[in-house]
Amino acid sequence: MASRIAIVGVGQVGAATAYALILGSVASELLLVDVKIELRDAQARDLSDVACSIHSSTRVRAGTHREAGQCDVVVITAGSRDLRGQTSTEHMYRNVSVLRSVVRGMVPFKSDAVVLVAADPVDVLTSIAQDLSGLPKYQVFGLGTFLDTVRLRNLVAGVAAGIAAESVNLSVVGVHGEPQVVAWSAATINGVPIDKFLQLDHAALEGECKHRTESLSQAKGVTPLGISAAVSSICSSILSDKGDVRTVSHYQPDLGCCFSMPAVLGRKGLLQIIQVPLDRNEEARLARSAKRLRDLIDRVEQNQEARRAPHEL
Amino acid sequence: MASRIAIVGVGQVGAATAYALILGSVASELLLVDVKIELRDAQARDLSDVACSIHSSTRVRAGTHREAGQCDVVVITAGSRDLRGQTSTEHMYRNVSVLRSVVRGMVPFKSDAVVLVAADPVDVLTSIAQDLSGLPKYQVFGLGTFLDTVRLRNLVAGVAAGIAAESVNLSVVGVHGEPQVVAWSAATINGVPIDKFLQLDHAALEGECKHRTESLSQAKGVTPLGISAAVSSICSSILSDKGDVRTVSHYQPDLGCCFSMPAVLGRKGLLQIIQVPLDRNEEARLARSAKRLRDLIDRVEQNQEARRAPHEL
Amino acid sequence: MASRIAIVGVGQVGAATAYALILGSVASELLLVDVKIELRDAQARDLSDVACSIHSSTRVRAGTHREAGQCDVVVITAGSRDLRGQTSTEHMYRNVSVLRSVVRGMVPFKSDAVVLVAADPVDVLTSIAQDLSGLPKYQVFGLGTFLDTVRLRNLVAGVAAGIAAESVNLSVVGVHGEPQVVAWSAATINGVPIDKFLQLDHAALEGECKHRTESLSQAKGVTPLGISAAVSSICSSILSDKGDVRTVSHYQPDLGCCFSMPAVLGRKGLLQIIQVPLDRNEEARLARSAKRLRDLIDRVEQNQEARRAPHEL
Amino acid sequence: MASRIAIVGVGQVGAATAYALILGSVASELLLVDVKIELRDAQARDLSDVACSIHSSTRVRAGTHREAGQCDVVVITAGSRDLRGQTSTEHMYRNVSVLRSVVRGMVPFKSDAVVLVAADPVDVLTSIAQDLSGLPKYQVFGLGTFLDTVRLRNLVAGVAAGIAAESVNLSVVGVHGEPQVVAWSAATINGVPIDKFLQLDHAALEGECKHRTESLSQAKGVTPLGISAAVSSICSSILSDKGDVRTVSHYQPDLGCCFSMPAVLGRKGLLQIIQVPLDRNEEARLARSAKRLRDLIDRVEQNQEARRAPHEL
Repeated sequence: MASRIAIVGVGQVGAATAYALILGSVASELLLVDVKIELRDAQARDLSDVACSIHSSTRVRAGTHREAGQCDVVVITAGSRDLRGQTSTEHMYRNVSVLRSVVRGMVPFKSDAVVLVAADPVDVLTSIAQDLSGLPKYQVFGLGTFLDTVRLRNLVAGVAAGIAAESVNLSVVGVHGEPQVVAWSAATINGVPIDKFLQLDHAALEGECKHRTESLSQAKGVTPLGISAAVSSICSSILSDKGDVRTVSHYQPDLGCCFSMPAVLGRKGLLQIIQVPLDRNEEARLARSAKRLRDLIDRVEQNQEARRAPHEL
Repeated sequence: MASRIAIVGVGQVGAATAYALILGSVASELLLVDVKIELRDAQARDLSDVACSIHSSTRVRAGTHREAGQCDVVVITAGSRDLRGQTSTEHMYRNVSVLRSVVRGMVPFKSDAVVLVAADPVDVLTSIAQDLSGLPKYQVFGLGTFLDTVRLRNLVAGVAAGIAAESVNLSVVGVHGEPQVVAWSAATINGVPIDKFLQLDHAALEGECKHRTESLSQAKGVTPLGISAAVSSICSSILSDKGDVRTVSHYQPDLGCCFSMPAVLGRKGLLQIIQVPLDRNEEARLARSAKRLRDLIDRVEQNQEARRAPHEL
Repeated sequence: MASRIAIVGVGQVGAATAYALILGSVASELLLVDVKIELRDAQARDLSDVACSIHSSTRVRAGTHREAGQCDVVVITAGSRDLRGQTSTEHMYRNVSVLRSVVRGMVPFKSDAVVLVAADPVDVLTSIAQDLSGLPKYQVFGLGTFLDTVRLRNLVAGVAAGIAAESVNLSVVGVHGEPQVVAWSAATINGVPIDKFLQLDHAALEGECKHRTESLSQAKGVTPLGISAAVSSICSSILSDKGDVRTVSHYQPDLGCCFSMPAVLGRKGLLQIIQVPLDRNEEARLARSAKRLRDLIDRVEQNQEARRAPHEL
Repeated sequence: MASRIAIVGVGQVGAATAYALILGSVASELLLVDVKIELRDAQARDLSDVACSIHSSTRVRAGTHREAGQCDVVVITAGSRDLRGQTSTEHMYRNVSVLRSVVRGMVPFKSDAVVLVAADPVDVLTSIAQDLSGLPKYQVFGLGTFLDTVRLRNLVAGVAAGIAAESVNLSVVGVHGEPQVVAWSAATINGVPIDKFLQLDHAALEGECKHRTESLSQAKGVTPLGISAAVSSICSSILSDKGDVRTVSHYQPDLGCCFSMPAVLGRKGLLQIIQVPLDRNEEARLARSAKRLRDLIDRVEQNQEARRAPHEL
């Protein structure tokens, strides 16, 4: 009956996610997992002080990868450290390698575990995690463009002085990063097309979203807290099982890889996909970037096979 | 800095609203007001026990109408007792008379007070409260079709197994009760037209909404708790000042009276109106019922004038 | 993983308890159970509107006694209707009979279910529920003097202008009602004996506590909301599993029956008992009333046996 | 009516405090202030994403020192960066100098502002802030031994398996750091002396508390999150105005400087002091360290006078 969340990788993003989950008493137990044992144990002691300071009902403890695989929700932040700056090929291969290693440490997962990938490049890593996890595809998804969507709604709400960002229905979809697409044609406020209210500079808004993580990372010197708040918000949507609609990276059967589209989230993972109507141009851009993503994933998987050939096979 | 809400009329609806506001620590202070002094004081003692049981940060105390007019939010439930059953002309006149009396006991209001009318017939009473209060029109509104909207979204979400009711954008608008109109043509889920997802029996859903208060009242023998939860939710939207969009009864300049349309709520009252696109038929029904409402209000006001002529003028 | 609470008996106390549990999103699912099917179903529909109005993550549905026995927490309010007024022998026998009937409808319970009795006379009913439930004694307890304790702390905090009631450590213990005892000798504020701060009129405070439910019931015409808030608070202490110390009615091995003493509550029920130091006089009063309670329970059990002899055995 | 908190110094501690305040929707508005304008603006943008991700009702914006002085609560974290490691004389002088500069930038304060000092050495800085602020002494206090008290209660609760840390009444008092004193003689659980329950290794527990910040800082490489959670918890106690008892650094008239004792907190600042009974030995240690603190403050104030002589006077 107790709900358990594991945070795999308790660097900066992992710790700030745990902090938010404790402050919100989102789960009964929070398991912190990391290959760096001393860091992990220090985070557990520190976050236990946090829980106590604010009378949270969440308990915190350090755990193993094996135990993490038995939790209800598993957040993988491992390898997320270099989110800021460009995701070079080097960085990608390192993160893929970390991801493979932590997922292998967790299998077999509890059969109803939900896995949330919060490391970059998110669509590549989510696709690989799905394959390795042995779980149904709808139980494994990635943060995707959720934070971009939150930011865009916030920016639009700022223009529409007074309207809550929650009332702005507007989604960033597709492959996270440069290729992501804003579904302007489906944008509404309380069901009313958004262009009946507002004059918006689409290009400026899209650009601000796309580069915000990078510009904030540079100014702050650390990864933005918005990422951790977004991850904790998705964990809460899963466990509260209310059917929140969130734009996360999940498997797209037509295009054979994971990227972001709005979906209904709950305790069983992804319950339903919301098909956002795109215009022809948006549709084409999305298909092109999905194709490139699919090729990239194939290449990564072949390389990994090649690399581990001598000693792993 | 402390936020204060007054509940004017602490019968069943008032007490259950206060209970919800305390459980949510929505305001710093809650003022209970009623002409029945013994009842009012018992409610204050009882609700103070509630606050203490759950460590609420809201303080409760009994107060006068005069003090209520100095609060940040004033909820008028006075006269709401007979919500169940039909709103006969008799009942309407009684409630109009109660409303006039309590509003007169409160004027002059604090200049930035927001008044929420939660008694029936809500559109008539809200229109009259606006005139009597001396406050700007956007600071006085009524519960209107907010609960009907909540119920309809809940029913639709029930059909769309898994989707949160919050993600269903669908509004009941117009004059509360028989004439109310569902804006089916603007119904969306996450920006996508609702009929792309769901086959809905419009007539059955509308009927269920329209008669739910009555049928629940009969089965329970008391006013539904949904009304009080709805009122407390609007109070929270006002004080949290997030710009929530809610379908409440407010002044419609074109038609010269108050009825429900979605609006952006905040600490200053009604911040902005969202024009829901209606089809021609819906538009026509709404205009007809608004005309009848305007006539009814005129008649009520003349009668009141006539009635009080001998002794009041 | 989902937490489930059953409310058995959805009259006024049951409905107001459910309302509080929904507003606090305390459990994932709330099961409403009553022999009056139409009332039960109306409450389920009404409380579902409540959940939707405030975006609670608790789902509400109607259920059977059998299903209730499979929930994590089972609240028995059945028969609580006549709390106001004296608990005559007639009333007691009726409530005992209702309790026996609902408990029999639920056995066998889920092995880790926690049962909370919230009907009067609470110590008698809790003792009987323990025997009938087939559950370990530490999984069955009653509301006892928890609300009296809350009220007394609130009254004392009112005198100690400015101090939160939570910081007042003061317990009402023993057999609920006339014989209950205030443990003045163990009263502290933040660990400091309370008489270093305050001049308190013990007799007046004890009297106010003892008769508050009755006086509020008379003034309001309905059962006080404080009872429901107290019940929902105990449910929350159980599910949050934080180890809150609460004064509830539980089995006292020395005296062979259930009455109230502070105890540590958690998901497994009563985790630990806190022995409050009493002076000789308090001790003696408590022993006398426990003896009388034990005799009463014996008498009730014999009578019940006698009564059901013809048709039940 | 809107409540406003200013965070002065938005490095790591300031940002994590702001994060917690937003997640808990503690205030209506959060003002971020720092001499590093680019950092401050990035934090405001980042924390605005946080607010939006979790639908907080707190608004975030960047502001000036002048504006900070007009907020309801002012948290000074400036100069807190080097909390980890020893507080050398060098570090102290730097922090005193930063504190003087930020307080001078804020005076005159709003007359009912409450100032919370969350930088080290906390008792020195709080004493100086009181003098410079021009506010009544009970409106200016420091974090003091609050986190030490939280940690100690948590450690004791860990030994007393099952009991919530909130039920452990045990305070760390006196001058923060090496000289701090645990008031074992007044330690209770629910009013019962703690030694009736538990065998505790006093020296080990005191040592763990005293050095936890340092050991966590070393293992994590950054300041513990517990500090920020503790600061946000105090802000919440102030604004919720419930009269929480908290061990914070405040003016002790007998000894002429600021150190920690339990006190009742509320919207007006420190409402009342709780005199913890100490044994003779504890009393003597406390007096000695207070004397040393008083001398240190005098020396610092003379030096500051001397230093600024040429150019400031």
